[in-house]
This record gives sequence, structure tokens and C-alpha cells, in this order.
Amino acid sequence: MSNTLGNKYRVTIFGQSHSPAIGAVIEGIPAGVAPDMEAIAAFMARRAPGNSSLSTPRKEADIPKIISGLNERGETCGAPLAAVIENTNTRSQDYAALRDVPRPGHSDYPAAVKFNGHNDIRGGGQFSARLTAPLCFAGALAKQLLAERGIRVRARVKRIADIEDAPMDFADPALDAILSSSGIDCVDADAARRMAEAILAAKAEGDSVGGVVECFATGIPAGLGDGMFDGMENRVARALFGVPAVKGVEFGAGFAAAGMRGSAHNDPFRMEGGAVITAGNNHGGALGGITTGMPLVVRAALKPTPSIAREQRSVSLSRGENAELAVRGRHDPCVVPRAVPVVEAAVACVILDMILEG
Amino acid sequence: MSNTLGNKYRVTIFGQSHSPAIGAVIEGIPAGVAPDMEAIAAFMARRAPGNSSLSTPRKEADIPKIISGLNERGETCGAPLAAVIENTNTRSQDYAALRDVPRPGHSDYPAAVKFNGHNDIRGGGQFSARLTAPLCFAGALAKQLLAERGIRVRARVKRIADIEDAPMDFADPALDAILSSSGIDCVDADAARRMAEAILAAKAEGDSVGGVVECFATGIPAGLGDGMFDGMENRVARALFGVPAVKGVEFGAGFAAAGMRGSAHNDPFRMEGGAVITAGNNHGGALGGITTGMPLVVRAALKPTPSIAREQRSVSLSRGENAELAVRGRHDPCVVPRAVPVVEAAVACVILDMILEG
Amino acid sequence: MSNTLGNKYRVTIFGQSHSPAIGAVIEGIPAGVAPDMEAIAAFMARRAPGNSSLSTPRKEADIPKIISGLNERGETCGAPLAAVIENTNTRSQDYAALRDVPRPGHSDYPAAVKFNGHNDIRGGGQFSARLTAPLCFAGALAKQLLAERGIRVRARVKRIADIEDAPMDFADPALDAILSSSGIDCVDADAARRMAEAILAAKAEGDSVGGVVECFATGIPAGLGDGMFDGMENRVARALFGVPAVKGVEFGAGFAAAGMRGSAHNDPFRMEGGAVITAGNNHGGALGGITTGMPLVVRAALKPTPSIAREQRSVSLSRGENAELAVRGRHDPCVVPRAVPVVEAAVACVILDMILEG
Amino acid sequence: MSNTLGNKYRVTIFGQSHSPAIGAVIEGIPAGVAPDMEAIAAFMARRAPGNSSLSTPRKEADIPKIISGLNERGETCGAPLAAVIENTNTRSQDYAALRDVPRPGHSDYPAAVKFNGHNDIRGGGQFSARLTAPLCFAGALAKQLLAERGIRVRARVKRIADIEDAPMDFADPALDAILSSSGIDCVDADAARRMAEAILAAKAEGDSVGGVVECFATGIPAGLGDGMFDGMENRVARALFGVPAVKGVEFGAGFAAAGMRGSAHNDPFRMEGGAVITAGNNHGGALGGITTGMPLVVRAALKPTPSIAREQRSVSLSRGENAELAVRGRHDPCVVPRAVPVVEAAVACVILDMILEG
Repeated sequence: MSNTLGNKYRVTIFGQSHSPAIGAVIEGIPAGVAPDMEAIAAFMARRAPGNSSLSTPRKEADIPKIISGLNERGETCGAPLAAVIENTNTRSQDYAALRDVPRPGHSDYPAAVKFNGHNDIRGGGQFSARLTAPLCFAGALAKQLLAERGIRVRARVKRIADIEDAPMDFADPALDAILSSSGIDCVDADAARRMAEAILAAKAEGDSVGGVVECFATGIPAGLGDGMFDGMENRVARALFGVPAVKGVEFGAGFAAAGMRGSAHNDPFRMEGGAVITAGNNHGGALGGITTGMPLVVRAALKPTPSIAREQRSVSLSRGENAELAVRGRHDPCVVPRAVPVVEAAVACVILDMILEG
Repeated sequence: MSNTLGNKYRVTIFGQSHSPAIGAVIEGIPAGVAPDMEAIAAFMARRAPGNSSLSTPRKEADIPKIISGLNERGETCGAPLAAVIENTNTRSQDYAALRDVPRPGHSDYPAAVKFNGHNDIRGGGQFSARLTAPLCFAGALAKQLLAERGIRVRARVKRIADIEDAPMDFADPALDAILSSSGIDCVDADAARRMAEAILAAKAEGDSVGGVVECFATGIPAGLGDGMFDGMENRVARALFGVPAVKGVEFGAGFAAAGMRGSAHNDPFRMEGGAVITAGNNHGGALGGITTGMPLVVRAALKPTPSIAREQRSVSLSRGENAELAVRGRHDPCVVPRAVPVVEAAVACVILDMILEG
Repeated sequence: MSNTLGNKYRVTIFGQSHSPAIGAVIEGIPAGVAPDMEAIAAFMARRAPGNSSLSTPRKEADIPKIISGLNERGETCGAPLAAVIENTNTRSQDYAALRDVPRPGHSDYPAAVKFNGHNDIRGGGQFSARLTAPLCFAGALAKQLLAERGIRVRARVKRIADIEDAPMDFADPALDAILSSSGIDCVDADAARRMAEAILAAKAEGDSVGGVVECFATGIPAGLGDGMFDGMENRVARALFGVPAVKGVEFGAGFAAAGMRGSAHNDPFRMEGGAVITAGNNHGGALGGITTGMPLVVRAALKPTPSIAREQRSVSLSRGENAELAVRGRHDPCVVPRAVPVVEAAVACVILDMILEG
Repeated sequence: MSNTLGNKYRVTIFGQSHSPAIGAVIEGIPAGVAPDMEAIAAFMARRAPGNSSLSTPRKEADIPKIISGLNERGETCGAPLAAVIENTNTRSQDYAALRDVPRPGHSDYPAAVKFNGHNDIRGGGQFSARLTAPLCFAGALAKQLLAERGIRVRARVKRIADIEDAPMDFADPALDAILSSSGIDCVDADAARRMAEAILAAKAEGDSVGGVVECFATGIPAGLGDGMFDGMENRVARALFGVPAVKGVEFGAGFAAAGMRGSAHNDPFRMEGGAVITAGNNHGGALGGITTGMPLVVRAALKPTPSIAREQRSVSLSRGENAELAVRGRHDPCVVPRAVPVVEAAVACVILDMILEG
């Protein structure tokens, strides 16, 4: 089930960076939904490359074509919905060289071991961040269905390099305060500007930087999530670690909880307008894996882009000796700004899946 | 599949804190293995309560009884192995009161919503940390099979409250340097002593503390893990978020990677003794979700025990108004020391699963 | 997932004929159900051996003990329900001899290949029909939940040897006309008597006979079942082929449909009391895998018991040469009468699963 | 998982009769395989419509386009392989009328209930036999991989209407004796001719006929298949009931076993050339769900095509009253001849899946 996410809203992703196309097959969409293609396109544009000086110059129209799953009125019909995005802007390269000297921080080497040298080396193959485009398609559709149920998913860049965006209230996050500024989704426009500078500074030195994306989901009903291994955190974490470059996932107070006392970390239950809420949201929206009705708060740490212009040390697999490598090609000096919609998409798919499971 | 972990080494866990028994059914164990019951008992004793002044005074023999899965020679026979642990030391309480005023930081409230008030409230029911006992059984058996394949899984307490154990070399962790000291697995005995003091200090104040467990697995072959959502990180994270109190999971450099440059974070490939290794191990053992042959390095953040003696604010569900709560019962002021074998067990189950899948 | 049935009502069966116990873990039971243990015991008694001269003299109390999944009030609590049945009446034998000369028609040989000689040979191990006892437990519980939803599952012996029970109306089966007579569930008591005679005649000759069980389920709502591989027939067939000795499964007109014209086979839609029904039920309750609201009609063919007293030809695996074999032990000369509740159980589990999936 | 088949060789099928395209995503193909597109096209041509006067006049080029899963050398690379077949020859119709009066024997009515009227009514939507084209693609690829392992899958028409093809030796089926004659795969050319006549006779009367396909697979190693619900029969049956019109599945002697004595049905084990075989093959290749090394023998009963030219009785869903219906459009008077490669494909996918699971 390596490329499949979800039980009821089941998303299977396929494609490689340079295959003829990439796409997704989605099972379990409720029948009778007319996908809002404009909203989907707008969402996917947030992820698309080439939108600013911060990202790779590779440009892709990235317009998904739905080839199954709709009836004659353009509504979902209960059949799996398949969407395909053509890969139109691929460049040829000398793949023999790439197969020999694996890029540090990339999957080239372990994939070559796993697939006995048959892995698709072009542009990172199936491990390319390009595969997040069909995930964003699935997420955009999920967001549409979630919106109908009063659920909103929104993420922002929490940190790039050593620059942090302003804190947000976990119990009542001001999602509308997140705005794109300097090409980065933040609540603090000045922080966004300094983040952009940090990215460009790294780029100028042939280097890259990492960061943290923080995602909120409001309006989730209490009582969702299953048992020991299919609680909200299990599912969200499994999904987020499918996003390339993610190396850490935490909920609510997260790692900071390690340093807290129980009396400070526990979120007291309170009545508010006839409903049970918590004062504070260190728990991040789930207790025992089951949603509490409070906002989901999750952060994903993304490593700096491994593809850097600087010369790096590697090995020649054919010669069995150390070698030097300079990675050419079009790469983001920082994937974090474009990862914001991707994280939203992954979270949206998981929440919709839990809701449809009931 | 809420209580099931793994595809090939499939562990299904059942039970509640106060049900007649808890246990696990394990499918997919290779046939012909004679479980080393002494080693299993020794491993499970590391998790068992009542071993030191740091943990709950509840004592359980916790001896698993294997009721299926072995042939007449005591070897695994290809049938699912079922192991049962009786719950012998349970105390009655006034459950009506517990049902009314949910404990902050516990699953009482969301579980009541999910199960419409029918959840087992006694001792936390299925959400109790007691359910980690059958997970440890499955992990102990997995460790036996992994050891035969040259793979070793070992964890330690990295942090409790604000006290940190000494750093370890991610690329070549000295697992034998991890020793139990003051009832805590650490490499630095002095740090362990101060951690124990911090726990007892919190306990004395009717409070609790959290911490971080760091786990290593050495000897894993390169090339394991599948695609986008079943890579090593996806699986390990899904398993670890099944351990009660875990609120964050990170691999290798983890969240610290967010602040690093690519040139510093990338682990160069090197030849060593004819094999490809990396210099450094910021990646934590997997790239693109596929194992590199370097040690798995994962950290889990555990929140402070929510059950504290101090009076806390909560609500009365029956009266729909705010209420005060004092949690009685036997609770660990810090679950982190006992979580060390649990984290090892979860990681061992996942690695064995990946190995058996090939 | 070899021993697991169902997505939402997930039944995992464990045990061997001579292991300390057999049992089932059931996930997904709605919370708040108090299992009717008397009804469960009565249902399981229909399957239990030793009830008549037609079956094996092995007697088992077969009283399932629920060791998890209930709250303090004896209701399902949302946690997996585990039920255990002890194996109390097992006989020792010379297993070395059994390992060497596999019984024709049994799994001894392929299981020895699969498990490299470590399979549990005692009493057929995990392949024993005894494993249908926990399936009946799961089915009895499923029937309780189905009854609350107006759904009734009832089977009968359609055929033993060359004797057929009277036909029933597929569109409106008179389930109450099925009665146990001469130890066999039939609508025609005289047919049942002759079936019993045929079984005893075979037994007297050291031989065995096969037969067909026909199962009906009424009250199923229209619109259940999923797509290409999880329609009603796919699921029911997968479940029924898990019942030992089943070699064929057919729905509605089944194989007879091969000889029919479309004009005769098609069941016309009709309005009746404001509802859409079909006149006739050759389709057996599902079209395109989706339930129509008409009764499910399914038949399972069971082969004659392979264990017969007569000497049979086999091989000695150790000597690599042909050998003779006389099977001793306690065996049914015909499993068909006892298979009736087992088929009901399998069908009930599947229907409940589909209903809970929605 | 409604449209997904298999654990290791996982085939997910998508599309509707009149959607822009249909296709399949296949996970788990071993890396390094260059698909033999000529062999795939030849196999798919056996299923394609319009090849003879026996089938629908709808013609489709049905050339699958592989849009992902191959590396730059045209070999499988470990990524999911996606293949797409365009729907080019679809005709518009008055769908409103089709939505109102469901066709007897079709999924129109239950699908309308399930999907609340949003099902794709055009050409049967996702329930169309056209969806067997991507299944054949997956099966053709599976057959290529099986052939490399010495495994051969071949089916024939066993029966159409009341005409039977000659019997074949289950223990040693002469697969090369199966030849296409009069557009029908049989061993007896005269039987094939009479079958073709029976089809045309039914067609001339505006009617249709059903039949039985019998499939053999030789060269399967002993020891494959898993436990109670994932044995060979469970999996093959689940797959075959995914083929439209299949209403019964039986293995080896199948339903005829019901009338046999154990002494006649049991297949004695024998040594032959150092290997264990059985004399006879009433068991059809699996005992206890585990393959024995003998040929798989399975038969699928197919109902007569429900779409017939004759006027039929149905209902008007909008008016809630009985109505008459005459089905227009292009339909096979008998789907059995074209189902032969489809059955082969389903069986091949299952066997490959079991082999890759090991």
C-alpha cells in the first residue's frame, strides 16, 4: 500500500518526475459532488513551481485532467476519480552519470539498492517533490468537502532558517491572519520578508535552508480517530512523512511538552456556550488519538533541500571509490514555502478520511 | 485496522486496563521459531510497573501466556500466535464519578463522545498505557528475530524535564554504553540521577514531568521501505504515535534540520571497507523513506503524565457546568523511563515487518 | 491479512485444533451492545461436535470467554472484543507418523511445504474445522446486531450425497419452514431423514459424503457493496471459501444461469407497496455487486470429509516413496449438517460489515 | 478497497464505460521488467469487442498507454505503473430515460440507490464490462512475469447454453489443445461451432445466453496461500466475482464434489520423478487454501447478458409505477467468449500476487 493514503477517502498517487504523467486515483468520494476546478487550480497554483524567485525556474502548467469518476453532469458518481497531470517540461540529462554518483541527502543510493539499479533516476523519479502535485489535487478536493462540513485547514511557515513567524493561539487560531507576503505564508509580514532574504542568501552561496510548517484545522467534530494505531496523530504523521523532506512531526506543544509539568501541559476542560472546550490547546486537537473538537495543530520540520550547487562529497558506485559531485539542474533553495499547501493537502485528506469513516 | 500494526508481521492488540485480560495476536511470524520466553520476560520486566519508586505502585506479574501459534515442539507453526496477559491487580472505583468529570489530558472526554458513553472508563480502558505490555511482547519476539539477522534495537532516555543525557554518535551509536542507572536508561549516570530527582521533585508537588526517548537500530540493510506512505519514517511514526503520551516524532537531526544549511545537513556518501556509508547521520537512516544501511535514529517526545494529584479544572458532563477534579489512583509521575522498552518494541515490530516484506 | 475478515466488523481468528485455546478478536463492534450470551451459546451449540450420531464423538463445551471489549456494565466499549475458547478435549498421538505420510484431501502436505515442516500437525492444526467455532462466535454476535436492524440470516442443507431438500422461493424464502430434523436443517423432514441415512451408510463403509448448504439473508437494504472487488458476492465468496471443505460458491441461479436465456434469467423490477422489488430472484440479491434489497441467496458446495477410515494411498515424505495410510481419529462422516451455522456465521459477518461501512 | 485487487501485485482499476478514459494503477511490480507491449496488445485483442459477429459492434482500439512506472530504458522502476486506455467510441443517449427505468439484471437500480442517483448511467458506468480491459492489461503483464517463472494460465469456454466442450484432464490439462474456433476458445471445434450457433440463435430472437469458463494454471509451486481468508480459493473467487456477470465459482470437482464419496474425491498423493503429486485433481490445486503444486482448476459461471432487445418489464422510478423497457444499444448476445481472457487475467493477477508474497 506504499502509495495509498486513507481508508475511506483512499488516494493512490502515481508518477515520476519525468514520466509522461503523474496523477492520483481517489476512491470513496461521496457521490454527487461537482469538483470546483477553479478552486482546485487556485490551490494547486500555490504549490506550483516557478511562481517566485524563491523556487525552481521549472514551470509546469500543472492542470489536472479528470479522466474518470464523474457522471454526465460533471458530478462524482461513486466510481474512482482519476486525475492526470502531464509532465511537459522535462529536460534530458546524462543519466549514466547520475546513476553512478548518488546525490547526498537524496534517495538515489537507497533506491538503487532497493530496485537493483532500475529506479527512475531522472529528476529523482518517484521520490521527486513533483509527486506532491497530485497530493495537492486530492487535498484540494478534500478541502472542498471539508468546507461544506465547516472544517477549515490552513498552514503557514512557522520557521525558515532561524527566523520564526509570530505565535498563534492554538485554541483559536486566526487563520485569516495568514497571508502570503514576499511569497511566503506568514502572519508577520516582516518575518516573511526576512525569511525570503535568508533563502536568497543561502541561494547566493549555492546552499539551501530548511524550516517548519505549522498547520491548523478548525471545526473538526469531537470523537474521530481509531484506537491504538489509527488515531489522528498516527494518520496525520503517516501522511506528512510522505511529503518529501519532512523529518519531524509534532502536535500541539509537541517536543516542548517534554519540558513541561503536567499541571501546565494539561488543558482544562471548560463549558463554553453549552459546549465542552479546553482552555488552551497543548494537546493539539486529539487525546488518546481521538479528536476533542479543538483545532488540530501540527508542525512538520523540513530539512534543507539536499540539491545544492556546491560541490559535495559522494561515491562512484561503479568504481567503488569516493568521488566529488556538483548537482546541476533546477532546484528550490528552500522547499518550505511551497510545502505549505502540501501540508494542508495531506492534513485535509486525513481529516476527510476520518470523517467519512465516522 | 485501528489496533493492528504491520503488513507481514501483523500485530493486533486487544484489552483494556481492567478487562479480564489484555493480549496480542501476531500473524506472519516465520515458522520454526521457538520464542525465547526468558528473554521475552526480561524485556517485558523493563516495562513492568512497580519496579522502582519512580513508577506506579501497581504491580503486575505480566507473564504472557501463549495460547496459539506453536506446534507440539514449541515452535511457531505458521498460525497466528495469540498471547494473553491476565489483569490481576485491578481496583474497583466509583465509575459513575469518573464518567461525569473527564480528566484533563486524558481520552475520557473524546472517548465518551466517540463511544456515546459506553467507553470503558476503568483505568483509562483501551487507552491505558497498560496496553503497551502486549506491544512489548510483540516487540520482544521481533527483537529475537531481528537479532538473528544482526539487527539491534536500543533506546534511552534522551531528556526528562530540562535534563539531557549525553549526545551519542548517530552514525555509530555506542549502544552498550546505555545502562540503567537510578532506574533510567542513559549513557550518563549523573544525568540519570538528576532525571530521577526531577521526577521525584514533581511527584512531591503532586505533579508530573515529560521527556524524550531516543531509539537506535543498527544493522538494518539498505533498500527497505516503500514509496510515499510506507517508507521507514511513515511506519515508525505511525507506530510510535500509538504509544500513549507521544506528541512528537523526529528522525536524525529532526526539527533541528529546520535551522541547518543543506551543506551542513547533507551526509556525504563515503566508501568504507567496500561498503557505501555516510559520513554523519543527520538523515537518521532513511532517504526518500528507504533505508540507507545507516542506523535508524528516532526520537519520541512524551508529554507529562496527565494524571496528577493536584486539583484540576474540568467539567461535569451531566450537569453541563465547570467542575473541579482531583485524580486519585496509582500513576507514574513520569512515563518516560518505562517508555524506553515500549519505543524499542514499536520500532522492532516495524523493522521486522519491513524486513519480512523484503 | 490471512486470518482477518472484514473492514469495519473485523474478525481475526486464531488457534489450532490442539493449541491451548482458539478464539477471535473483533474490531469495529458498535459501542453499547450487550452480547446475548445465551443466544450465542445456543447458536454455537448448533455447530458443536458430539450432538448426534452423525458427527465426531469429540465433545467440546465450546463456551467462549470474553476477555476484553466490554465495559463494567457488560456492554461493548469500542475496544476490540477478544473471545477465547479453551481446547480441553485433545488427544495425543504419534505426530511423527502424521508428519511423514500426509492425508489425502488434507492440507498436511502443502502446509508442510509452506511452513517447512513446522506446521502444527495435531488434528489438522490451524486448518481444522474446529476454527469455525470462533467464526460462529463472531457470526452469532453479528446476527444479534443484524436482528436489531431487521435482517435475518438462515441456512439449510440443500443437498447431501444425491438427496435434495425441497426448493425454496428465492424471492420470499420461508425461513421458519427450515427445521432441524434427524439432526439436519431442512424444510423437508423426509429428505432430512434420507440424508441422515446416506451419511450413516457412508460411515458404515468407512467413507464420507459431501453436500450443499444454501443460505438466505432477508431484510438487507438496497445499495450496499463496493465496486469491482468488494461487492457482495466478492466478500461473501471470500468468507465462505474460508470455511473448510467449501469448493464452490454460487449466488441466485448460480451455475444454472449458464444454461438460461437472458429473457428467463432477468428478474423484472416491479413496484410493490411503494417499494421496488424484483419478480423472481435469479440474481440472488446483488446486481453489479450492489445489494438490491431482495434476499441474498448463496449456496456453498462442501466436499466429502477427506478423513475416512478406509485405507488410502499416499506417500512417505521421509522415504520419498509411495505408502499406504489409514486415518484414525474422530471425524465426521459428513460435515454438511454442522456447516449450516458456520455458513450463516460467515454470511452474517459479511453483511454486518457492509452495513457498518454504509 | 473496492477497486483494488492484491496485496503485493496491487491492481487498482478506474474508469467508466463513457468516461474520458479507463485504466489501472499497478503497485508492486518487480523492478527491471520491460513490458512486452506486443504480447500485451495481442492478449487484450482477445477481449476487445468487435472481433466477430458474436459480440457487440462497438470497436475500440484499446491500446493502453503507460504514463508512469517505467524508467528511461522502458523498464519497471519500482514506482506504480499507470496505464490509461482512452474511451473513443462512445455514443450519446437520452440519459434521463435511462435513469428513470432501470434495466432488469443490471446494476442501474442498486447503483442509483447507493449513489443517490448520481451514478454514471452511461453504458453502465463503472459496472460496464469495459472495465475488464484494464484488468486484462494487468493480467497480461502478470502473465509475462508468470511465464518467466514457468507458470502458464489458460482458459476455455466450458459451456454455452446447453453445449459443453470436451472434458480435460485436471491433473495434466493439454493447454495447447485449446484453440480459437468459430471465435470461441475450446478444445472441441465442433462444440465451438455449435456454441456459436446457439449464440446467434439467441441473438436472432432478441435474447442472450450464458455459459461457463474453465481456467487452468500450471507450474504453480506448492505452498502458496495464506490461512483462513487469503487462501488460493478465497483470492481467486474474490477476483472472479469482480468480473461482470459471474454468479458462481468452483474449484476442481466443485459442486459435483457434493455428490461424491470421500474415497472417490480424495486425490491420493503419489511420488513421480522424485516429486509429490496427486493422482487426479478433484481438489483443483489447493488444499486448506494452500497450493499443492497441481494445476489450479477453476470454473466461473456467467449469466446471460441482461441487455436484450426484447421488451422487458421494469419500473419508472420517477413515477413509482411499473413500466416497460426496450434496451437499445450495442450489446453482446453472449459475453462468455470474450470472458475467457478476462478470467485468465484475474487468475494471473492473483497467482502472481501470491508468488510475490512468497
